[in-house]
Amino acid sequence: MEAALRALAGDEDVAALFSDAAALRACVEAEAALVRAQGAAGAAPVAEADEIARAIEGFRPDPARIAQGFARDGVPIPALVADLKASLGPSRGRRVHVGATSQDIVDTALTLRLRKVAEIVAARLRAVDDALAALAARDGATPLMAHTRMRRALPFTAADRIAGWRRPLALHLARLEEIAPRAFVVQLGGPVGAPAKGGAVGDAVRAEFARLLGLGDAPPWQDARDRVGEFAGWLALVCGTLGKFGQDVALMAQDEIGVARPARGGGSSSMPHKVNPVEAETLVALARWASALAGAVGQAMVHENERSGAAWTLEWLALPPLCEAAAASGRLAARLASSLSLRPDAAAAAAKEGTA
Amino acid sequence: MEAALRALAGDEDVAALFSDAAALRACVEAEAALVRAQGAAGAAPVAEADEIARAIEGFRPDPARIAQGFARDGVPIPALVADLKASLGPSRGRRVHVGATSQDIVDTALTLRLRKVAEIVAARLRAVDDALAALAARDGATPLMAHTRMRRALPFTAADRIAGWRRPLALHLARLEEIAPRAFVVQLGGPVGAPAKGGAVGDAVRAEFARLLGLGDAPPWQDARDRVGEFAGWLALVCGTLGKFGQDVALMAQDEIGVARPARGGGSSSMPHKVNPVEAETLVALARWASALAGAVGQAMVHENERSGAAWTLEWLALPPLCEAAAASGRLAARLASSLSLRPDAAAAAAKEGTA
Amino acid sequence: MEAALRALAGDEDVAALFSDAAALRACVEAEAALVRAQGAAGAAPVAEADEIARAIEGFRPDPARIAQGFARDGVPIPALVADLKASLGPSRGRRVHVGATSQDIVDTALTLRLRKVAEIVAARLRAVDDALAALAARDGATPLMAHTRMRRALPFTAADRIAGWRRPLALHLARLEEIAPRAFVVQLGGPVGAPAKGGAVGDAVRAEFARLLGLGDAPPWQDARDRVGEFAGWLALVCGTLGKFGQDVALMAQDEIGVARPARGGGSSSMPHKVNPVEAETLVALARWASALAGAVGQAMVHENERSGAAWTLEWLALPPLCEAAAASGRLAARLASSLSLRPDAAAAAAKEGTA
Amino acid sequence: MEAALRALAGDEDVAALFSDAAALRACVEAEAALVRAQGAAGAAPVAEADEIARAIEGFRPDPARIAQGFARDGVPIPALVADLKASLGPSRGRRVHVGATSQDIVDTALTLRLRKVAEIVAARLRAVDDALAALAARDGATPLMAHTRMRRALPFTAADRIAGWRRPLALHLARLEEIAPRAFVVQLGGPVGAPAKGGAVGDAVRAEFARLLGLGDAPPWQDARDRVGEFAGWLALVCGTLGKFGQDVALMAQDEIGVARPARGGGSSSMPHKVNPVEAETLVALARWASALAGAVGQAMVHENERSGAAWTLEWLALPPLCEAAAASGRLAARLASSLSLRPDAAAAAAKEGTA
Repeated sequence: MEAALRALAGDEDVAALFSDAAALRACVEAEAALVRAQGAAGAAPVAEADEIARAIEGFRPDPARIAQGFARDGVPIPALVADLKASLGPSRGRRVHVGATSQDIVDTALTLRLRKVAEIVAARLRAVDDALAALAARDGATPLMAHTRMRRALPFTAADRIAGWRRPLALHLARLEEIAPRAFVVQLGGPVGAPAKGGAVGDAVRAEFARLLGLGDAPPWQDARDRVGEFAGWLALVCGTLGKFGQDVALMAQDEIGVARPARGGGSSSMPHKVNPVEAETLVALARWASALAGAVGQAMVHENERSGAAWTLEWLALPPLCEAAAASGRLAARLASSLSLRPDAAAAAAKEGTA
Repeated sequence: MEAALRALAGDEDVAALFSDAAALRACVEAEAALVRAQGAAGAAPVAEADEIARAIEGFRPDPARIAQGFARDGVPIPALVADLKASLGPSRGRRVHVGATSQDIVDTALTLRLRKVAEIVAARLRAVDDALAALAARDGATPLMAHTRMRRALPFTAADRIAGWRRPLALHLARLEEIAPRAFVVQLGGPVGAPAKGGAVGDAVRAEFARLLGLGDAPPWQDARDRVGEFAGWLALVCGTLGKFGQDVALMAQDEIGVARPARGGGSSSMPHKVNPVEAETLVALARWASALAGAVGQAMVHENERSGAAWTLEWLALPPLCEAAAASGRLAARLASSLSLRPDAAAAAAKEGTA
Repeated sequence: MEAALRALAGDEDVAALFSDAAALRACVEAEAALVRAQGAAGAAPVAEADEIARAIEGFRPDPARIAQGFARDGVPIPALVADLKASLGPSRGRRVHVGATSQDIVDTALTLRLRKVAEIVAARLRAVDDALAALAARDGATPLMAHTRMRRALPFTAADRIAGWRRPLALHLARLEEIAPRAFVVQLGGPVGAPAKGGAVGDAVRAEFARLLGLGDAPPWQDARDRVGEFAGWLALVCGTLGKFGQDVALMAQDEIGVARPARGGGSSSMPHKVNPVEAETLVALARWASALAGAVGQAMVHENERSGAAWTLEWLALPPLCEAAAASGRLAARLASSLSLRPDAAAAAAKEGTA
Repeated sequence: MEAALRALAGDEDVAALFSDAAALRACVEAEAALVRAQGAAGAAPVAEADEIARAIEGFRPDPARIAQGFARDGVPIPALVADLKASLGPSRGRRVHVGATSQDIVDTALTLRLRKVAEIVAARLRAVDDALAALAARDGATPLMAHTRMRRALPFTAADRIAGWRRPLALHLARLEEIAPRAFVVQLGGPVGAPAKGGAVGDAVRAEFARLLGLGDAPPWQDARDRVGEFAGWLALVCGTLGKFGQDVALMAQDEIGVARPARGGGSSSMPHKVNPVEAETLVALARWASALAGAVGQAMVHENERSGAAWTLEWLALPPLCEAAAASGRLAARLASSLSLRPDAAAAAAKEGTA
């Protein structure tokens, strides 16, 4: 996403996690943890492993070379490992990437960042909830007209409507608690995902690898993408809830209803009198966008054999914008909830007219 | 889905749950439980409520009249309630549908059936897992060639590959345990989803309503569709896992690989020598289909106001085929896993050739 | 789709085209044309070919047996051809299905029905356009308030808005004219889609086959699904346009705007005062549904090798509901356009209020 | 998309068209053409209009300020026009953006770039076709085994298979010829899309505007997104065809089949013997990705009222990656087709084994 559109509908924090630099940093972090884990698990001398791990952590890959390798190999790791080994020299280099394959590093490095995405999105969901709680405390008594099937239904209050917006937020946070132990786990399966085959590391190394990275331990999942798909589904679910909030605000902000006026809003190049509910509309766009992206991740679950270049590449295309959509939705929704006024005067007038 | 295609890619058990007759039965069951709950909660005389509930349970709606009402009202309940009241007479009729609106009945009746879908799919996942366990016990020692990115990678065993197929199954069953308390709950919110507004029933009636139907109790969620979306996501995730299994088998069944020959298979109208891996291919088709359908449910999360006719109708279109896809995937995968042979002879030959 | 939901959001005419009976009739029609074409092209004695073709046309397949065969073979044709040959006897039977494979019959039989779908949808688009022209002639002078980004923008007239609804309709009809020669062509490629390989018929037979069925002639496309995908895209485009019309009417029908009141509308089971814009909402649902279904057809374009059971089955799942969605959208939009009143009184009041 | 992933699955040429700088350049180009058109159409003094247009063409907007405005207004134009007017001074500034609204500039500037995308993709389709023609000329006589439903079917030749890959390419180019006059047209409708309302320009200015920009002339389509949707559908169709080519090559490149070995291929970080069919796999990923993105554009067709901020933003999110996917598919497919060898030796061996 380019900078201008990102300013509206993207998120700098998540974009930074998926930058070339951050992706390489996470891969380097995983390679370092792998060496250190071999020391901790007794598969290599501890002191040597730690020394090499520190050297790896200090390694600064050349992004242009890695991009070339990515285009050639379909994955950035062969080029990265070659450069890393070259920088360490043959003696230390032979301890690098032992028992691992490209996917172990890429999937683990991805997971490190998905976990941060989850933290960002969760924090924003809590901010949305806090802002809505404050809104309910201040404007909750405002009489509103409930609408069903696009028609006036019966009077209720702002508190009723806000309660409806808030309920799914707590459920989303509860879902994340359940998903996290499945989603945020290391991948370490060696060339074909079968432990102890083809030089794959043992369970002890994998457990240390997980502990060092602060991720959960799990058997290889390189070709079973339900962990990724479940988290993608959660992100889209979050966007859906926030898109519903945005849709409601956009409808309430209609001049003819006039119940909610966004404090902030977009100007028009031809109609100076207009204040557009830009945040609310963008939430709707992001919900639909996230659903389409989650669908692409869903298609990537048909991951053939022990590793599918096609399905895996499809994830790479869809996951970053999906993460960004969820974080952007959270940021926009928190800002919208904070700035929203459910004005008693307009609302009362609208409600009165409706029951007349 | 018509009968012939259903024989291949559908499921009679789930289709029966979404038949007109079953949909009406579930609505009638919900209406009866609502009356009985009012008795149990002290909102109506117990004996009278029970008697009316029994009468409701004996009511047989006229499907053609309901369909007409559906086309007119966009929802089947106004016609159903009118006919039900007419059949009960005015005295008993005034106890019917008290505090409820169409969506309460339709969503609760849907949930009653989604819970049964979950039971069907879970049972089939267990059957797939059992069949794969038996396959591993019998053929697990067979040497196979692992494949990554469509190329031979390294030798491993049938047990390794089967373990990869099985791991997500246990996770799916664990997910369902977590999802169930959120997904299988009554909806009872009255006209605008706000308890105690517009004649909505109190919490005690709702709790009894839930208890009588064997569903969980929850505040109104008529316009917060994350509960539905989460379950739809689970169904698609299940189909994705089974589609990956099907894709692998279809690849293993290639003549040039010849590792897995489906015991059953489809004949050709022009090439008598062919045995096609029909079950495996259908699993792939269903995984992609389920992902598209879950995407439609995702779009329906932008559910405007207190009730969106547009978003709700979209769910009705997408959920039944999605449930059917998951059940069909489970049935086909269990059958495929049971009939599959990972033949030591062919596999050994293939593995040997690859390492030569 | 079950009967009750079909009454709202489906279409009996298109559903009839995709019934088991109609599917088999179309397959039988194709088999008969194939025999007759061999006579006409000099590949079989004319009189014998015509006599056999008439016998085929009189053949009544047993749907239950075909469904069994479908489930076994992944395609209905092997069972159909076997039964057909048995009914004709060996001497006449050897002229049946010559040079053809299952896909030739299934794809050609599908195309015969897609062409009818196109005719149905086109007729309804013309009906929508006629109804909107009449609406413009009657209510076009009504002053309305244009809305952009959910806010009042500037006054315009009903004629302006109706012109916006109508413009894409003519474009859709023009698109269909261009698509038809690509989309409505016979498939006849024999076992592997290569003419003159494996007993495939020659060009002359295929040209006669096309002529007899009233379809275009084209080289085999059994594994190149752009013809199907293009038509699916057109159907979704049509639904999108009509969904926009529905969305606009639903917004105009809001009580607070009150510009458009649907003459017909749905009743509520709990709020007798409500008239819901059911047709308009259903159009929105169908547009989103059609887009999801077209996406499934898009996924089916990755059609591996000379025939993909997986990709082909995915088309079978998605195309019938997509066709039904487009026809239902056309029917609902025509009815909505015919019944719509852009009332000068309400509109004037709304416009006045907005410019005050 | 970040740089490393773009090196594999993206396209620099199309990415450049959607950069912030290129987007602003296209907007400035449209603003200049609008002033010049007013001169040419007699709505402003010609010499003054031309002088102002040249000044506009020399204007260099500040991307950071525009991005801020984008985030605030939901659209970049108010900030751009304000800065542009400030740079021109009040006398010349009053000629700027006359009769136009933000969407006129954004949609026209988008169209200018979509047309270039079409040219890029069309050129690559022709390159794919040329490379496949050369491949057929060189290797066409190679006997191959056709595969249906993942099984060996009958022998045919490389020429047969290549002919199947090529057929849709010519159709795609023919489709583009038909689509272009609908898709590549100016948008100029003023604030609410109704000519001559709210200060909109007359038909003569719009015709000149179109002529100056080399686009077609058309009545306003700001809220009728079928033109955009049709082009998006074409891009996805192209990707589908090329994804099928990639899928076939990936299957043919399997060691056990060995018919096609990509000249280039990706290396593995753990298995030095492997050469992965990275281009072929990426084509499959891009086809599925494009289908998901086209689905998002499809959802954006439900474009409410005279301008939908939600639907329009959704297009902005989905269109650039969709264009990039199509261009990348074309580039990868041309490279793959050029480097592909359908080796007579391997193919003959495979075919012989199959018919034994």
